[in-house]
Amino acid sequence: MNHHDLLQAVDRLPLIDHHVHSVLEREIDPAEFALLLTESAEAAPNGTSHLDSQAGFALRRHCAPLLGLPRHIGAQAYLEERSRLGQHEVARRLLRASEVSVSLIDTGTVGGETDLASNTAFAALAGHEVGEIVRLESVAEGLLGSGIAAESFPAAFRRAVAEASLEAAGFKSIVAYRYGFDFEPAPPSDSETIAAVRGMSAAARRRLEDPTVLRFLLWTGARSGLPLQLHAGYGDADLDLLRCNPALLMPWLRLIPRSGSPIMLLHCYPYHREAGYLAQVFPHVYFDLGLGINYSGAASTAIIREGLELAPFGKLLYSSDAWGLPELHLLGARLWRAGLSAALQEFVDRGEWSTGEALRVAELTCSENARRVYGL
Amino acid sequence: MNHHDLLQAVDRLPLIDHHVHSVLEREIDPAEFALLLTESAEAAPNGTSHLDSQAGFALRRHCAPLLGLPRHIGAQAYLEERSRLGQHEVARRLLRASEVSVSLIDTGTVGGETDLASNTAFAALAGHEVGEIVRLESVAEGLLGSGIAAESFPAAFRRAVAEASLEAAGFKSIVAYRYGFDFEPAPPSDSETIAAVRGMSAAARRRLEDPTVLRFLLWTGARSGLPLQLHAGYGDADLDLLRCNPALLMPWLRLIPRSGSPIMLLHCYPYHREAGYLAQVFPHVYFDLGLGINYSGAASTAIIREGLELAPFGKLLYSSDAWGLPELHLLGARLWRAGLSAALQEFVDRGEWSTGEALRVAELTCSENARRVYGL
Amino acid sequence: MNHHDLLQAVDRLPLIDHHVHSVLEREIDPAEFALLLTESAEAAPNGTSHLDSQAGFALRRHCAPLLGLPRHIGAQAYLEERSRLGQHEVARRLLRASEVSVSLIDTGTVGGETDLASNTAFAALAGHEVGEIVRLESVAEGLLGSGIAAESFPAAFRRAVAEASLEAAGFKSIVAYRYGFDFEPAPPSDSETIAAVRGMSAAARRRLEDPTVLRFLLWTGARSGLPLQLHAGYGDADLDLLRCNPALLMPWLRLIPRSGSPIMLLHCYPYHREAGYLAQVFPHVYFDLGLGINYSGAASTAIIREGLELAPFGKLLYSSDAWGLPELHLLGARLWRAGLSAALQEFVDRGEWSTGEALRVAELTCSENARRVYGL
Repeated sequence: MNHHDLLQAVDRLPLIDHHVHSVLEREIDPAEFALLLTESAEAAPNGTSHLDSQAGFALRRHCAPLLGLPRHIGAQAYLEERSRLGQHEVARRLLRASEVSVSLIDTGTVGGETDLASNTAFAALAGHEVGEIVRLESVAEGLLGSGIAAESFPAAFRRAVAEASLEAAGFKSIVAYRYGFDFEPAPPSDSETIAAVRGMSAAARRRLEDPTVLRFLLWTGARSGLPLQLHAGYGDADLDLLRCNPALLMPWLRLIPRSGSPIMLLHCYPYHREAGYLAQVFPHVYFDLGLGINYSGAASTAIIREGLELAPFGKLLYSSDAWGLPELHLLGARLWRAGLSAALQEFVDRGEWSTGEALRVAELTCSENARRVYGL
Repeated sequence: MNHHDLLQAVDRLPLIDHHVHSVLEREIDPAEFALLLTESAEAAPNGTSHLDSQAGFALRRHCAPLLGLPRHIGAQAYLEERSRLGQHEVARRLLRASEVSVSLIDTGTVGGETDLASNTAFAALAGHEVGEIVRLESVAEGLLGSGIAAESFPAAFRRAVAEASLEAAGFKSIVAYRYGFDFEPAPPSDSETIAAVRGMSAAARRRLEDPTVLRFLLWTGARSGLPLQLHAGYGDADLDLLRCNPALLMPWLRLIPRSGSPIMLLHCYPYHREAGYLAQVFPHVYFDLGLGINYSGAASTAIIREGLELAPFGKLLYSSDAWGLPELHLLGARLWRAGLSAALQEFVDRGEWSTGEALRVAELTCSENARRVYGL
Repeated sequence: MNHHDLLQAVDRLPLIDHHVHSVLEREIDPAEFALLLTESAEAAPNGTSHLDSQAGFALRRHCAPLLGLPRHIGAQAYLEERSRLGQHEVARRLLRASEVSVSLIDTGTVGGETDLASNTAFAALAGHEVGEIVRLESVAEGLLGSGIAAESFPAAFRRAVAEASLEAAGFKSIVAYRYGFDFEPAPPSDSETIAAVRGMSAAARRRLEDPTVLRFLLWTGARSGLPLQLHAGYGDADLDLLRCNPALLMPWLRLIPRSGSPIMLLHCYPYHREAGYLAQVFPHVYFDLGLGINYSGAASTAIIREGLELAPFGKLLYSSDAWGLPELHLLGARLWRAGLSAALQEFVDRGEWSTGEALRVAELTCSENARRVYGL
């Protein structure tokens, strides 16, 4: 079985995107398109472009043909054809071509955006099953924004999480963005949580940054039994990269119950080796390479191979973390399959692995691990 | 000279494993076997296995044929044949097939395990020379556990180290596990050390975690003149990975005498690039990639190549850090030779190095550096 | 277009070295030569040599033929021929063979060295244009050493920077060496700066280490409008590597004006992935791989590929950071062109990029980005 054959076999495997967002339903102009293709919130400086990047090149390579254009077409021609077809048709084509089987969609709001397709609309566009990942901070901010009394908050939040558990596939926390992973690991008592909520301004209730309350959310999520996703590593300029190193979670990972929620470390780049270590030594830790793949395009192969170093193969999952642009959904899936195949083929070519082992690892990481952990 | 030839030449070079542990003498059941093949102390979660990992695959590739089984045989069949042959025969075969010339064995105890082969028994099994690496914390815990008076401790420890120096090849410290590398760099005075010992409970005397006393051990070791090994980076879930980054040692490395002990940084993954930097700028710093190789199996080639970036070639050594399972001894040696050959061959193929240079670096890192530093 | 063709095309591109130092004019004996080929300030231990390193091997591969010697010649023969030709002739040959178009020379003093070629002499030797990068700490130390009154310092420094701006291509700060990147991000007021200067001894005025004054320099540089270079990551044993991680700059990068100076992160190894992230999310951040390339020789290809992961291609530049030895100037240029070509060719070979895209990225990173940012 040569590389082409292995890639073809991997291309036919079911693929579960265990952490993704929906697509925008409205039309997108070129300036907004560029900003959706980067984690930067600011325009590129004069003479440069966010599209002159691995993601931009990958897009012209992989998405252009699905819009009826030649590979490597110029960015402007791509954007013109995209605009002619319209966001709905582009989304339909790219989501279907990504050949994902199940998407677990994080429905937490980002910047008040309201034009994202509903999960039902996404499922119709993509032609595949969806599940929901509930963001803990959004649930808490909903309660706090409704004016709930501080002393009612802990019980109300636990009730909300229990109710969400009936429908959700899992939970997510963005504590990495709101504080960092260097939080006090022990669970706060209800009275500590109540005291922290009591001191909050209206603005602080709308955007949770209090470390005591964030820890209360995390501990509640980790006791829910459902998988708890944590953004780790790379993201937009709001976070403090060094405080998003998942190795900072070690004291907390030692304390939380092993029989509780599996902890799903998302993205992790450039700390994916640290994440692989955590996935080896802690039975309740899993990880993916998410965002680090779409955004590194042709260079993602090396990152995927690094993700295959220390972690047991039952602990690595696929996600795209795509948001808004269906191009990111397509790129995530294509680059993952290609990079995974290339890494596995290298092991086979050097005589270290059998082809059967390579396929088995592809099956585990493409869908079986997600199916087992999320109970799909 | 093609890759096959270079690999063959490297396969014939003497190999010194400058940091390794002994093998278990008792039989090992499948559950224990799985735990010995990981740095995790906990069973793998349902539906996963510690054997579905790079180390597990490498074992089936490299060890199975030495047990008379086909390459890539299933894990269960491997364990059955292993059990039929018995630990003694398996150890004999795998240790001999590892073609190591000298093993420097860390004789510090791990978890009270008493069934490890003595150094003499190991030498007989392996058919090669052994030397001893004395663990500083074990020496100190021996003295403290005997009930020595606090004020006698510093002199008694220095005497014990001086006596051990007559026989030992080197010393080792696990300060990375017991505290971290972010310790106060200056040497404590004897009176500070005595005061720290005076405050210790019986439990604290049996398991040293006091940073003042640990620093006293380190400084005594660094003044012994013998090589002082320091566990760095990756290890079991007990350590705090970020505090095991060897770059944290810079203030201490600046203070200790250059004419004292060579400092041998062990493993270092995922901070092996940091270790290579330290080995370039400090004359008394050496390093290896140890544990990071066995546990990354087919993916270890890239790690070995990263180890060949900044450090002068007189500063990189080989170790397996194998413990208990002779499979780890064999894998360390096989994967090191294969990965080193692959990296060197790549440099030759691109026209950057001559074959003679590649062989010279192989000789240095496989045995000459160890021979020179340890005076073997 | 095969790899050879792409390398040839890249070899013909103009190359701007946006951060480099001059060459020594005096003769260099073998002991000094060895120390100039490493970031270590100390002799290599017995039995080892700083020349047994990637840089040493690369030198024999790439520089020996330019001295009329065979590739891979022994180090001693190289040094003898070098000495016979003399530093001036060697510099002339190697600087010209590096085929650099423009060098931006950091004229800050290092260890009181006075035998460096002037920029005019360097330009004559190299046969190409030069520009000057003014080191902020040197400007401040000049003022402070002249005995300026504390209360006059802020205005005088701003005036000196404004005057230097008329001629200089950019500024540089070595705050990474003198303090670390974990400084208080906000700008100090003039009165805070004055208070800090007032407390300084004569020695402290000659070697600035006060964090308040260093921040004042940085903020002044960042408001100059000219590119501000910051040493980041790897360097000599004086720095604290972990405190040179450019990710520590995030709070400061958020505060400084976007319309002010572009921030040029130099070297960055082993934190070049962190630098690529910063270059993606902050419009005013650029980076290079400098020193990490010359010193990793044949292994630099992987580092260059890692530099092509997250950053937009308009944000990566070339520098050699060569100092003293013209061999380092030549190696920087040769290894950059070779490693860049190899990385780009890999993307083309896997069908991910077009050849046109590869060439475009080569043009951007070799010279166009520098030309745009420095206004050359």
